Amino acid sequence: MADTQLATEETNRLIASNKVEGTSVYNRAGEKLGSIYNFMVEKRSGRVEYAVLQFGGLFGLGSDYYPLPWEVLTYETDQGGYVIDLDKAVLEKAPRYAGNDEPPFDRDYGREVYGYYGVSYPY
Amino acid sequence: MADTQLATEETNRLIASNKVEGTSVYNRAGEKLGSIYNFMVEKRSGRVEYAVLQFGGLFGLGSDYYPLPWEVLTYETDQGGYVIDLDKAVLEKAPRYAGNDEPPFDRDYGREVYGYYGVSYPY
Repeated sequence: MADTQLATEETNRLIASNKVEGTSVYNRAGEKLGSIYNFMVEKRSGRVEYAVLQFGGLFGLGSDYYPLPWEVLTYETDQGGYVIDLDKAVLEKAPRYAGNDEPPFDRDYGREVYGYYGVSYPY
Repeated sequence: MADTQLATEETNRLIASNKVEGTSVYNRAGEKLGSIYNFMVEKRSGRVEYAVLQFGGLFGLGSDYYPLPWEVLTYETDQGGYVIDLDKAVLEKAPRYAGNDEPPFDRDYGREVYGYYGVSYPY
């Protein structure tokens, strides 16, 4: 690996929380699904357990919140946002909550959410 | 462990990024050191590498940013904020940067910062 390449990778290893919040999320077809509202961090370990997608009142659903495993999001520079490989129809059936009705965020919920996206729950 | 206790712990396993941002940070003597500005997440793993303390122009230093290892912060309910076991004098010599002058955030920098706080750098 060239030194320059390594330097670039090292510089871009980290992303700031307040830059992630508000970033648009698209599907592979380029359709905007919503934007990242916040993310949920496991207090003890400092791991991000979910990035929360806000589906801002599209499709008549009101503003719902979809917790996503961190690893399903890929940042695409060209797009200027995150891309997830997911149809709208799949997202419409995904685990979600209303803003005033947060789920327990326990491990059972974690297994349900991660399972929906086909990611093994590591906690 | 009683079921109720377990349920409470499970509920409070996670904290939202936008609730951490802006939270006050105190030292053991109860002096306010600043507040959390944001935190830096390792893109690939989703781990929080630093919580960034904003030292808001106190002590004539201007608004500087102090990256802290996640584990040096303890949330104290009574205080309504995070507490770190650190004197102001120690903080004044800690690694920091100005808002328009972010450090490279590479592994050398990580070892320097974590080392300053006596925490082994795990990345």
